[in-house]
Amino acid sequence: KNFNIALIPGDGIGSEVVSEGVKILKEIEEMDAAISFSFAEFPWGCEYYLEHGKMMADDGIEQLQPFDAIYLGAVGYPGVPDHISLRELLLQIRKGFDQYVNLRPITLLNPSLTPLKSKTEKDVDFLVIRENSEGEYSGAGDWLYKGKPEEVVLQTGVFSRKGTERIIRYAYEEARKSNRTLTSVSKANALNYSMVFWDEVFEEVGKEYPDVETYSYLVDAASLYFVAQPERFEVVVTSNLFGDILTDIGAAITGGLGLATGANVNPERNYPSMFEPVHGSAPDIAGKGIANPIAAIWSVSQMMDFFGEEKWGEAILSTIKTILKETEQLTPDLGGQGSTKSVGDRFVELLKDN
Amino acid sequence: KNFNIALIPGDGIGSEVVSEGVKILKEIEEMDAAISFSFAEFPWGCEYYLEHGKMMADDGIEQLQPFDAIYLGAVGYPGVPDHISLRELLLQIRKGFDQYVNLRPITLLNPSLTPLKSKTEKDVDFLVIRENSEGEYSGAGDWLYKGKPEEVVLQTGVFSRKGTERIIRYAYEEARKSNRTLTSVSKANALNYSMVFWDEVFEEVGKEYPDVETYSYLVDAASLYFVAQPERFEVVVTSNLFGDILTDIGAAITGGLGLATGANVNPERNYPSMFEPVHGSAPDIAGKGIANPIAAIWSVSQMMDFFGEEKWGEAILSTIKTILKETEQLTPDLGGQGSTKSVGDRFVELLKDN
Ligand SMILES: CC(C)[C@H](C(=O)O)[C@@H](O)C(=O)O
Ligand SMILES: CC(C)[C@H](C(=O)O)[C@@H](O)C(=O)O
Repeated sequence: KNFNIALIPGDGIGSEVVSEGVKILKEIEEMDAAISFSFAEFPWGCEYYLEHGKMMADDGIEQLQPFDAIYLGAVGYPGVPDHISLRELLLQIRKGFDQYVNLRPITLLNPSLTPLKSKTEKDVDFLVIRENSEGEYSGAGDWLYKGKPEEVVLQTGVFSRKGTERIIRYAYEEARKSNRTLTSVSKANALNYSMVFWDEVFEEVGKEYPDVETYSYLVDAASLYFVAQPERFEVVVTSNLFGDILTDIGAAITGGLGLATGANVNPERNYPSMFEPVHGSAPDIAGKGIANPIAAIWSVSQMMDFFGEEKWGEAILSTIKTILKETEQLTPDLGGQGSTKSVGDRFVELLKDN
Repeated sequence: KNFNIALIPGDGIGSEVVSEGVKILKEIEEMDAAISFSFAEFPWGCEYYLEHGKMMADDGIEQLQPFDAIYLGAVGYPGVPDHISLRELLLQIRKGFDQYVNLRPITLLNPSLTPLKSKTEKDVDFLVIRENSEGEYSGAGDWLYKGKPEEVVLQTGVFSRKGTERIIRYAYEEARKSNRTLTSVSKANALNYSMVFWDEVFEEVGKEYPDVETYSYLVDAASLYFVAQPERFEVVVTSNLFGDILTDIGAAITGGLGLATGANVNPERNYPSMFEPVHGSAPDIAGKGIANPIAAIWSVSQMMDFFGEEKWGEAILSTIKTILKETEQLTPDLGGQGSTKSVGDRFVELLKDN
């Protein structure tokens, strides 16, 4: 099987970490005669914006359409406002390709990485399924009476039946398939339209899954329990904004953004799905060759799972666990003395031995 | 000086913890000849709702108007949907009395209480100033095509110039007064109207406070840093919803909701302000006499500060730190064998000795 991968290294450390991910993919190609990859690189991002006044080509979405997957590095750079750089590239792709499922594993890979006192790997091992196409991120709103005392700004979350039902259904399927509990996170006591609706859909769809054990938390309580009792969670389903916040708490309890990955999936495979480390472009360390590539490598694991090559997905994940034991070899953010490239090279060695 | 206090014990453990708070107030009255309190109790809450079909009297807001402060226990009970019980009592009062400032101290009172590995009291000691009257909690929205495939639900956050500017200005004043840094938390890269506006106002008002050192975080990053590096924060200002979530993360890192308080303040004092423990009505332990009253007692400390009796506010806070060292005496949630009442009694003893 040949898989066609679009590379968007993006800004800052994006290209540095994507290089290491590609190194792993090429190694897989070498080790597995049944798999091959083709790559095409797209130079989109903030530099492109500064030159062309747009974050990607006008027909960017069409150009990406034929690919099996998109591998994204990082987006954002000083001088380009975030609401342009992120909305017009990252969010554009998520929406443009109806990647309505965002899969973010919250997995403690090594007990030394958590800032929590008495939590171990078995306490912190769950999956957040974030709605990724609408909700609070719909971009709908208005700005009235600009500059006047009566100025008022409106931001509207849009929750469609279709959008809400499909993500919740996806989560129930995932919970059933893996025999895990399912927790919905919402906030009906304050958001009296959208979240009342969310809760209704969660209950309604749940009738088709009587075998799945469910819980329902308010987002404030869930945020607290992510820290205080992460062992409560197995599969979590939540809205776009709440998922954004909760998965960063998840990153905090598992060792930081250097180790957080996300898959932006269109389950029907009508469009390419996108795999990305969750961290940003980190302008402060860009170009120094010390960015931690492990989140980006984990994204490759998610990509392999998505391709149906779970064997490789698991091999990568278990190699991540192995390399995390070799503190000296890691990048400075993890207390080591390695470089982005040396971590990638060591990873390839370990993957060979796996 | 006589202070007129309206008591709304509310539901579940609300009345149990409010009783202990009142015990402390009466003790202050006894110890300080210059201060007296009058109390009036209002039976509003879910039981009232089940009987009268409403959470408080129709003229509830008018009845409360003459008071200097409202002391609220907890609201919510099984059988009454949260979006009724909370919106029609708690949120009604916050809005009805223009209590647009929500002050939530995130203070580690005892090093043993944090679930974080290497954080001490000096790392976790900041104040979250939450917008408390509008924003995401405005209640504006619509529910279209109910039950049809094209069903769509809208929830609109309303950010007014007046509402945004006054909370941000309040925060700058607080930071200046206490010589602390000020961090604004928003999310302009996704919420392209409301949070772009928020950031603009934060910058604009900041021009009047060149002496205040400022930071601006995205809500996801702030959530991560609340856990990973709480020492970054001194004064934090944020929107209603983000404040709700962030302060629960704050509760998590300082020992849980049993120790979290909030003051809902109308700074102009045109209306009464409200003081409340942040925890809920805890139906599972209601009536057992084991609810932890410390958050409710901390609310009394905030009330005394608000009355300009900072001497008492500080005495209460320092007595809380003292009692937290006596683990055996505390309620079961804190690992002790005490009751709600015995903690209150012991507290009075310690306050006398203070
Ligand atoms: C960069 C930003 C727009 C994005 C989001 O909010 O979704 C990021 O925080 C993420 O979690 O993928
Ligand atoms: C009960 C609920 C409506 C309330 C809120 O969301 O503001 C609570 O969580 C709080 O933080 O005071």
